[in-house]
Amino acid sequence: LDTFDVVTFGESMIRLSTEAGERLETATRLDMRIGGTESNLAIALARLGRSASWASVLPRSPLGQRVARELRWHGVDISAVQWVDDARMGVYYLEPGATPRPTRVTYDRRDSAVSLVDPESIDPDIVTNARVLHLTGITPALSENCAAVVDTLIATALDHNVPISFDLNYRSLLWTPERASTRLALLCEQASVLFCGQDDAATVWSLTGASGDVARGLAERFDPEVTVVTLGEEGALARTRDGTVHRVSSIPVSIVDQVGAGDAFAAGFLDGYLDGDIERGLRQGVAVAALKMTMNGDLALISRAEVDALLTNRTRAIVR
Amino acid sequence: LDTFDVVTFGESMIRLSTEAGERLETATRLDMRIGGTESNLAIALARLGRSASWASVLPRSPLGQRVARELRWHGVDISAVQWVDDARMGVYYLEPGATPRPTRVTYDRRDSAVSLVDPESIDPDIVTNARVLHLTGITPALSENCAAVVDTLIATALDHNVPISFDLNYRSLLWTPERASTRLALLCEQASVLFCGQDDAATVWSLTGASGDVARGLAERFDPEVTVVTLGEEGALARTRDGTVHRVSSIPVSIVDQVGAGDAFAAGFLDGYLDGDIERGLRQGVAVAALKMTMNGDLALISRAEVDALLTNRTRAIVR
Amino acid sequence: LDTFDVVTFGESMIRLSTEAGERLETATRLDMRIGGTESNLAIALARLGRSASWASVLPRSPLGQRVARELRWHGVDISAVQWVDDARMGVYYLEPGATPRPTRVTYDRRDSAVSLVDPESIDPDIVTNARVLHLTGITPALSENCAAVVDTLIATALDHNVPISFDLNYRSLLWTPERASTRLALLCEQASVLFCGQDDAATVWSLTGASGDVARGLAERFDPEVTVVTLGEEGALARTRDGTVHRVSSIPVSIVDQVGAGDAFAAGFLDGYLDGDIERGLRQGVAVAALKMTMNGDLALISRAEVDALLTNRTRAIVR
Amino acid sequence: LDTFDVVTFGESMIRLSTEAGERLETATRLDMRIGGTESNLAIALARLGRSASWASVLPRSPLGQRVARELRWHGVDISAVQWVDDARMGVYYLEPGATPRPTRVTYDRRDSAVSLVDPESIDPDIVTNARVLHLTGITPALSENCAAVVDTLIATALDHNVPISFDLNYRSLLWTPERASTRLALLCEQASVLFCGQDDAATVWSLTGASGDVARGLAERFDPEVTVVTLGEEGALARTRDGTVHRVSSIPVSIVDQVGAGDAFAAGFLDGYLDGDIERGLRQGVAVAALKMTMNGDLALISRAEVDALLTNRTRAIVR
Amino acid sequence: LDTFDVVTFGESMIRLSTEAGERLETATRLDMRIGGTESNLAIALARLGRSASWASVLPRSPLGQRVARELRWHGVDISAVQWVDDARMGVYYLEPGATPRPTRVTYDRRDSAVSLVDPESIDPDIVTNARVLHLTGITPALSENCAAVVDTLIATALDHNVPISFDLNYRSLLWTPERASTRLALLCEQASVLFCGQDDAATVWSLTGASGDVARGLAERFDPEVTVVTLGEEGALARTRDGTVHRVSSIPVSIVDQVGAGDAFAAGFLDGYLDGDIERGLRQGVAVAALKMTMNGDLALISRAEVDALLTNRTRAIVR
Amino acid sequence: LDTFDVVTFGESMIRLSTEAGERLETATRLDMRIGGTESNLAIALARLGRSASWASVLPRSPLGQRVARELRWHGVDISAVQWVDDARMGVYYLEPGATPRPTRVTYDRRDSAVSLVDPESIDPDIVTNARVLHLTGITPALSENCAAVVDTLIATALDHNVPISFDLNYRSLLWTPERASTRLALLCEQASVLFCGQDDAATVWSLTGASGDVARGLAERFDPEVTVVTLGEEGALARTRDGTVHRVSSIPVSIVDQVGAGDAFAAGFLDGYLDGDIERGLRQGVAVAALKMTMNGDLALISRAEVDALLTNRTRAIVR
Repeated sequence: LDTFDVVTFGESMIRLSTEAGERLETATRLDMRIGGTESNLAIALARLGRSASWASVLPRSPLGQRVARELRWHGVDISAVQWVDDARMGVYYLEPGATPRPTRVTYDRRDSAVSLVDPESIDPDIVTNARVLHLTGITPALSENCAAVVDTLIATALDHNVPISFDLNYRSLLWTPERASTRLALLCEQASVLFCGQDDAATVWSLTGASGDVARGLAERFDPEVTVVTLGEEGALARTRDGTVHRVSSIPVSIVDQVGAGDAFAAGFLDGYLDGDIERGLRQGVAVAALKMTMNGDLALISRAEVDALLTNRTRAIVR
Repeated sequence: LDTFDVVTFGESMIRLSTEAGERLETATRLDMRIGGTESNLAIALARLGRSASWASVLPRSPLGQRVARELRWHGVDISAVQWVDDARMGVYYLEPGATPRPTRVTYDRRDSAVSLVDPESIDPDIVTNARVLHLTGITPALSENCAAVVDTLIATALDHNVPISFDLNYRSLLWTPERASTRLALLCEQASVLFCGQDDAATVWSLTGASGDVARGLAERFDPEVTVVTLGEEGALARTRDGTVHRVSSIPVSIVDQVGAGDAFAAGFLDGYLDGDIERGLRQGVAVAALKMTMNGDLALISRAEVDALLTNRTRAIVR
Repeated sequence: LDTFDVVTFGESMIRLSTEAGERLETATRLDMRIGGTESNLAIALARLGRSASWASVLPRSPLGQRVARELRWHGVDISAVQWVDDARMGVYYLEPGATPRPTRVTYDRRDSAVSLVDPESIDPDIVTNARVLHLTGITPALSENCAAVVDTLIATALDHNVPISFDLNYRSLLWTPERASTRLALLCEQASVLFCGQDDAATVWSLTGASGDVARGLAERFDPEVTVVTLGEEGALARTRDGTVHRVSSIPVSIVDQVGAGDAFAAGFLDGYLDGDIERGLRQGVAVAALKMTMNGDLALISRAEVDALLTNRTRAIVR
Repeated sequence: LDTFDVVTFGESMIRLSTEAGERLETATRLDMRIGGTESNLAIALARLGRSASWASVLPRSPLGQRVARELRWHGVDISAVQWVDDARMGVYYLEPGATPRPTRVTYDRRDSAVSLVDPESIDPDIVTNARVLHLTGITPALSENCAAVVDTLIATALDHNVPISFDLNYRSLLWTPERASTRLALLCEQASVLFCGQDDAATVWSLTGASGDVARGLAERFDPEVTVVTLGEEGALARTRDGTVHRVSSIPVSIVDQVGAGDAFAAGFLDGYLDGDIERGLRQGVAVAALKMTMNGDLALISRAEVDALLTNRTRAIVR
Repeated sequence: LDTFDVVTFGESMIRLSTEAGERLETATRLDMRIGGTESNLAIALARLGRSASWASVLPRSPLGQRVARELRWHGVDISAVQWVDDARMGVYYLEPGATPRPTRVTYDRRDSAVSLVDPESIDPDIVTNARVLHLTGITPALSENCAAVVDTLIATALDHNVPISFDLNYRSLLWTPERASTRLALLCEQASVLFCGQDDAATVWSLTGASGDVARGLAERFDPEVTVVTLGEEGALARTRDGTVHRVSSIPVSIVDQVGAGDAFAAGFLDGYLDGDIERGLRQGVAVAALKMTMNGDLALISRAEVDALLTNRTRAIVR
Repeated sequence: LDTFDVVTFGESMIRLSTEAGERLETATRLDMRIGGTESNLAIALARLGRSASWASVLPRSPLGQRVARELRWHGVDISAVQWVDDARMGVYYLEPGATPRPTRVTYDRRDSAVSLVDPESIDPDIVTNARVLHLTGITPALSENCAAVVDTLIATALDHNVPISFDLNYRSLLWTPERASTRLALLCEQASVLFCGQDDAATVWSLTGASGDVARGLAERFDPEVTVVTLGEEGALARTRDGTVHRVSSIPVSIVDQVGAGDAFAAGFLDGYLDGDIERGLRQGVAVAALKMTMNGDLALISRAEVDALLTNRTRAIVR
């Protein structure tokens, strides 16, 4: 088995979006891309030069091939993907918003190949040689089978001292806050790195107030090595177990597409975390997220050089 | 309740197709249209000036609205459509072929809103004032619930002396010939008008040989008022109960999109049948199908004037 | 005759627009949509669940069908449309602007089917069962024939105690302020609901100053039941006959396309007015206009649920 | 005044076409190009290296600029164009056909700038230094004013011994065969080069039968220096005054867009005629028309090198 | 030889850009336009009604024709262009940025036709009848041959008292500040009008500080008739030899595409300079640049009427 | 070092094509894909399940990444690719033809990264574990450096008994038949599998006559293990060293894009050859080429299942 900086498991979907200003009801053309929070993160890390492996279940169909091969394009290892016949791809429709009209996501992922995963089919050993196992709160919401895989992977990681990175990612279209909080608490307790958006902290954990208070609340409750709270347009904050707090402001962005920004942030952060540099991780997270928001699609199509240039202010409006 | 020339029940899907020469695996844009054999027929009939009502189940979502409203655009009555929450639209992906590569249809219609129809929710009285009830062999293949609705509608039609038009439309991706033949025989026996493609006659009923023999075989087995056999590029044939056979050659077509040609044919035929003119029905069927094949999408976006012009040879390469 | 919440009469055009950032002189592709102030309003009202009927004259041609059927898509009744042969559709070209370059509209509507309307052909009885007759200042500017129809409809409405809603909508490309003010004064005097943009009040009626003063000026001059003044980016104001003034601030918008915002506002307002709730009408007007501006095209492709969500602040940047 | 190989006068329109397989009723995008029989010919000749001047009337508007500048792109002189305010461009909509559905042209050219031409505004001296004056049967059908300009130009040409090339181009959407034949006979009698399609000869002059008979019939009736009959897919034929007949077969074409093929043929022919080589003219006409049909739009975007390569059979499926 | 208001020499390239939000690595479609600083300026001046001639070297190929003919579309004289066989067009790829991601230009112009120019092939007499010779700092960076042409043109201009307009336009992808400063100093010293961006003044001449100081620094060093400093979002400043300083604020712009704004500014300025009106030139420069930024592509597709409307504040959000 | 079924070396380019019916001179959009004869073959083989490695030189730029990653998408190993700074990608422009207008390829590949390859930088050991080394006649035409790499790879292959597959692929835009024949004879002599189109055999080797004679002529001159002659629309022929001749007819194709068909053929053939089955290789070659021609772009986006279905006649016009 190869060694990877990060191993992750989750669902990637076909993303079908209307053009800006167009509605799904009347659109005649859709852009087809791929998206899924764990694969988004794996792709961003691979583009930063990290080795990343994404495990999932895909149908043997053109759409299944599309997802796998697009991950491979960006350098993500897909050898742990299981292929099945007669299954469907999850799909999500996206109608890009514009203030005050929200971006609207319509999931069509029920009974997708990965949600029907045979928990035995995912070899838990894929995590044994990983430096980090990354999971999110979406996967256990997909199905009991998915939740079982998550449990197994976590158990294996703990057995092998592989730290777990966990991104809460509460999705209101998948489950209620009550169901989510019960299930996700068990996972948060195992996390070495815990990512949580300020909104989700309020919705799922009823943690409100200043961002520092939210971080402290999460830290007290779940005691991870690092608690990372993302604050939307106000940047992000990381609190280490010793109570040290790092803060980074967000970077002004002319937003093209917000979807995937959280995954981009987590990828940027983990890149620093893998080098033991929380501070750099935070700054990188904010930078990768900012760059992602300037691009169409879920993916942060960045290079390390671009991230470095942004962090060192070596950017001009036009490079020529 | 209004009176309609034709009432039908079935599934309409979102049709997502790549551009000509593009593959689903690598495509970045998809055309979004609607398609479904019964709605295709209802639309073609409405455009010919017939009153048509399409019953189905649709989700209260932008995609559900899309289907309903596009039917309304073309003049089809949608008052018998049931609206449900938390359901999904059936989708089908289409990769247009080019000789020798076949056009490839990938269904993603499992657990669609209509397949989960509550059989009680479809009011059978919608057929009582119809001049014809049109059904196809696709609907009973979708689910037991759909099959139950079909049975109820047929029973009601028979009770009220509403003739039944039935288009066999065998779909190999939905069921096997064995299952289909058992189920469809019961329906064919109730049909006043029975449409069957020559290929399907061979696959489902093992009726091979010359087209006249196929028609006779169907007639003998199911005894409909009219048996209509479509012969692909060789035209079509109608045999009435008294053994009279009408034949019409196909019209040379520069094919743009074949999907929906059979539905267009059936619509053209029924238009003649409604006037008691089998001969005209056949000729119209061939003409509407030919025009349909010159257009992208499932739908025959025709007017009666265009069909008449084609039938009377009043066409030139350019009208100006 | 059916009863409708709102009946209106006017012109809908084919709208041909370049893509953002492209000029008409050099463009190679145009988006084709439909637009017209009265049909825009009827569509928005129908989407809010109101019954609306749009009367007009259309050519029996693909472009005429396009307009009628697109209205039907959105649920507007088109049974009062007159169909004529050998007539042309009005067309308008639109070059979307960007600060400081204005959006440029080029009308090509002279001698359109509706401008040549035979005044006798529009049955005045269509207004007798309407709850509101809505007219705008564009229609009388199109031709003497159109002006005659407007006069007849108003007379009929007054005879049957149907309140008249009138939107001034001064168009400098159609006539001069002098001609407009003479003609439009007669109409304003009949209006129960009078809509007037602050700009137009200055141009046509020389009413300047604070918005409250403009409203009072209009109220004093024309004495409608409600005077509604739209203030561009500053929101809107309604003054009832008893001198009560309601004000609503505008909603910050990331503008995609401004055209049709006024019609969307009027539709939202009338929806409240029909329920006797001026306050809600104003708030809805501002909300529907804001949503409209986030979409390409003249039309407010909204649902009541979206409007309600915006009014109750239940919106997030991404709904998922 | 400059000298030109060919001077012509006529209307060029904005051409708005749907994509292949799409109908005008439902299309959401239109391609915008320019087209007009005389400007098509002038462009083809300019691309072959001939000096050509196109006279017309255009509105001072982006669409007027579009037409003039696109002609200039291809090297056509536009100094004789008159510019007027407050006028409209003629437009034509094109729905590309596919066998058996005809390509459908919908004119919207009534009251276009050129149809309202002040006959005095076109300086007849533009033809005095031309080697050929080219006119078509479309222009006199547009308006009495246009017909007057045509008469004046012809009179001036005859005064200065400038030979007249006349292309019959009967358009059934503009006038009846009866009106056309009366008017066009006067023009044909003045032509040195008379182009007539075999279809038009039958429709307008009731000349039917073999192509040689049609040519002889035209020659006997109008006595031009050269009579050129185009035979659709069978090629073309030229009969000189002395009774000599030249025939050229057509070149097999995979048709992309037929519109403008006749104009391309005439341009190719005139290029040979200008060198006194009828034989080469015929072959070139067929070649330029064949190349034109492989391109979208009215225009023959050819170079002399391409035409020569086709005539000398130096073509392969792929040049690389 | 004709007389021109402005004669210029330089490279125009094929510009291939991704759509907004798309990256070159993954894009499937590119927009093809033309761009080059001198041709951009010539086009803007021609559209303002000035006679302008652009000299360059182009390959006899479709892409070479594209560039020449697009210049002719806008009214630029191209008679001084040299045509060569077997040469390549320069190309530049453009990935539009969004804050904080910069717009990225990738040049592929090495060994382009103009960079291999035979210096003898450009007739220096083209400048003798020009009112202004315009050159930029890009051309001498392309090749020694190009630099030689620039030198010859300057010498000829000086001989004939034709004032030289010089736009520094430092391009970091073409050379280092050191090489640029040595070479460009010689050119700046010959300039009557010297344009320099504040950034470039810092990079190439180490002139920093307030804009007035930068202008004085340039004036002292090179002593042009007018020194024009552009300040990005803060507007522009012109200092005449007598020390008089004119300042103009920039106009707020909703930026669509920044590339070419500097060329648009210079064109607007020169238009005023040609009339001896520095003040108007500055204001026009800012206005043309603002309008250019609202359009896709390098070109300022403006008319004088639009510029005048902007300068006199006669603009509204929508003109209709 | 890994073992590969096939190792190849050559250039892959960015392919920029106009849409069907559009010309490069006037096009506004280009499709961007990748293409190169060796990478086309490697991709087709990888999609058939063979392990393939493609060696080349690419610039560290978005376009370089594009090529490498798109190969990785399809499963081709790119570990032998050399990455260099400050180099350019080769580009080719493609104007799709239509009978009788040829498809026109315009190369812009001079001084591309691979043409400037440092021959030392390509490790010859990449071929030592290959089962076949595949080369084409294009690479030695690119530059002396490329030719040197080819020589080294061949020498290494011969040293290690790795059979060489050589596809003549004469390109008239790169060199003359004289230069090509001298250079390519040396390579043909080393080939175990020699592919040659019938046209190229005539142009380069003056071998004309019946296809069997051409094959015999090649076999006699170069004595490869297998001589494969492709006959355009007439299929293909393979002659083994013992004089046995296998023939396969071509499959009727509705051509979408011919470019790359030869590479697809060679890939299909080599797949059979790797299993020692010349007969199957020939049939597969014809099938893969036929499928390729139904797709846009250079690449044969096929699966083994599709090829098998075509070879066993299990195809219908629509699969559903």
